[in-house]
Amino acid sequence: MSEEIKVQLTATPGEKPDSQKLGFGKYFTDHMFVMDYHKDKGWHDPRIVPYAPIVMDPAAMVFHYGQAVFEGMKAYLTDSGKVLLFRPDQNMQRLNCSNDRLGIPEIDGDFVIHAIKTLIEIDKSWIPTEKGTSLYIRPFIIATEPCLGVRSSYTYQLIVILSPVGAYYSGGLEPVKINVESDYTRAVRGGIGFAKAAGNYAASIKAQENAKKDGFSQVLWLDAIEKKYIEEVGSMNIFFKIGGKVITPAINGSILKGVTRSSVIALLQEWGVPVEERKLSIDEIFEASQQGLLEEVFGTGTAAVISPVGELHWKEHTMKINEGKIGELSQKLYDTITGLQSGNLPDTRNWTITF
Amino acid sequence: MSEEIKVQLTATPGEKPDSQKLGFGKYFTDHMFVMDYHKDKGWHDPRIVPYAPIVMDPAAMVFHYGQAVFEGMKAYLTDSGKVLLFRPDQNMQRLNCSNDRLGIPEIDGDFVIHAIKTLIEIDKSWIPTEKGTSLYIRPFIIATEPCLGVRSSYTYQLIVILSPVGAYYSGGLEPVKINVESDYTRAVRGGIGFAKAAGNYAASIKAQENAKKDGFSQVLWLDAIEKKYIEEVGSMNIFFKIGGKVITPAINGSILKGVTRSSVIALLQEWGVPVEERKLSIDEIFEASQQGLLEEVFGTGTAAVISPVGELHWKEHTMKINEGKIGELSQKLYDTITGLQSGNLPDTRNWTITF
Repeated sequence: MSEEIKVQLTATPGEKPDSQKLGFGKYFTDHMFVMDYHKDKGWHDPRIVPYAPIVMDPAAMVFHYGQAVFEGMKAYLTDSGKVLLFRPDQNMQRLNCSNDRLGIPEIDGDFVIHAIKTLIEIDKSWIPTEKGTSLYIRPFIIATEPCLGVRSSYTYQLIVILSPVGAYYSGGLEPVKINVESDYTRAVRGGIGFAKAAGNYAASIKAQENAKKDGFSQVLWLDAIEKKYIEEVGSMNIFFKIGGKVITPAINGSILKGVTRSSVIALLQEWGVPVEERKLSIDEIFEASQQGLLEEVFGTGTAAVISPVGELHWKEHTMKINEGKIGELSQKLYDTITGLQSGNLPDTRNWTITF
Repeated sequence: MSEEIKVQLTATPGEKPDSQKLGFGKYFTDHMFVMDYHKDKGWHDPRIVPYAPIVMDPAAMVFHYGQAVFEGMKAYLTDSGKVLLFRPDQNMQRLNCSNDRLGIPEIDGDFVIHAIKTLIEIDKSWIPTEKGTSLYIRPFIIATEPCLGVRSSYTYQLIVILSPVGAYYSGGLEPVKINVESDYTRAVRGGIGFAKAAGNYAASIKAQENAKKDGFSQVLWLDAIEKKYIEEVGSMNIFFKIGGKVITPAINGSILKGVTRSSVIALLQEWGVPVEERKLSIDEIFEASQQGLLEEVFGTGTAAVISPVGELHWKEHTMKINEGKIGELSQKLYDTITGLQSGNLPDTRNWTITF
């Protein structure tokens, strides 16, 4: 796609939020990127416009049949004042993978990265600079055709909004308590679990809220078929360090192929830490815990980067991990990835784009 | 809920569509019902306003995390000029069941029925009268809070839109060809399959479109776990008449509890036709077909009422049903339910509301 991006700047720039109180996804910058799709015209009319409500027909298909996919990325400001993006090509690949599963037309990933860069340049002053903060980038695609027939929409909008976000853990990396979910399931083979689709998140909310009520931060999802194999934690991928080896569930159709997940695997391989992608049952984890071999557990995702798990509850069992403290490897992974993302560590892997 | 419904009538009533060319869900009436929810105020500000685009923040949670549920109902005009609704209480019960699963606040079903009646009275002239046509009613609830945290939204809108729709089968009841889907799955236990949630439909579109390309009208969904047991057909429930008995998959957590489904079961029981709700495998159906015992197959749903299946494809097998013609029982069910819905048959079961 080579169409020029039209730019209309806001006449009323917003006030920047207090960078100590950013939270996650509560504040949005002055502009957004929008692009339309029509089945006869393809993607067209790329434009940057002031951030504003969108106007949709109440029959728009996204409200009824949920054709909606998204991505989550972050932009960081380096010490030299440049903007840094972390592996945006991976997010674009996954967006197209989600599009394919949901019957949404493919996007030109390079063009969308170009659009994101153009948008961020305009709203660069919104990138927070406190340690751990960043500019969260949310590209999403929604079906806009007003029609109640169940089929793929003929029209879509791709929108990119930007949100300055705080450190995920205000008090630094803090191990969380998680509960193994035994009733609800997140996804199953043949379904849409591998896609970053709105419907997956809707399905997960109830279990998450029940877990919160019971004093847990997140749920650990088991597979829907045997209710035995680990899938994900909350909306993150998960890793277990057992007897010196790191194990993460293999990509199986119901697990999201996280960008942080693949970065962690690559780093571990570089460091010579044995890492396995395979089926991993909750029984195996419990046994390892009983034998004192469950050394570290951590979630990986764009929002938290690395989220150490301090306690894992399963039925009547409580597995304490590393005495509830952050593991050495979890900390090293966190420091390395955030170091790469802030530009403080040299990028030897071609993972970052700066501009 | 006892708040009065404010009414603002349109100044520019639309032109009615040609009742021969209605299709499904393409035209909408002059007005819609809207009601807001805020976690501190509950449902409030019920109002009927001119049908118009809605204005939503691009960060509205429905676009990102898919908290969206809906219902499908129909209004009919009786020969005496009254409006008839068919078992609307069932739809309201199911809406609350969907709400509960998706973390959406409960609605007052009686109040929403009252709102729907008020709305239809205003747009009564839009109810088409040709045989087989009706006014389709689409209540839906969407999460409107602008926030990218994954949790239940604090704000929602319930909207009811109305669409005059044509006969589902323009040429009368016509048996369709369906294909047993062997790769994709629709839902699984512990998931949201029993809820009328947007995400379920998004997950189904790809398989449906593949089936269409291969010359089939719909897919027959098997269970995700053993890939063996019948679940639904397209977005309908399904019934099999085998050796004089009617069998439909039992409600198991991944199947939608259809209002037409339960009406069909009730009618069959009244008529003394043996009917079973149980697990039913594709092997059992194939065997019955081989033995000449597969007498009728039909889908049930609000849109089509009864949708006879003439051919069922499974792997390399083609099962022809009743020589591709409509079965006697399918026809009787269709005639009875549409007779009740048009007001031409007496309602002895308290299934209809007229006003």
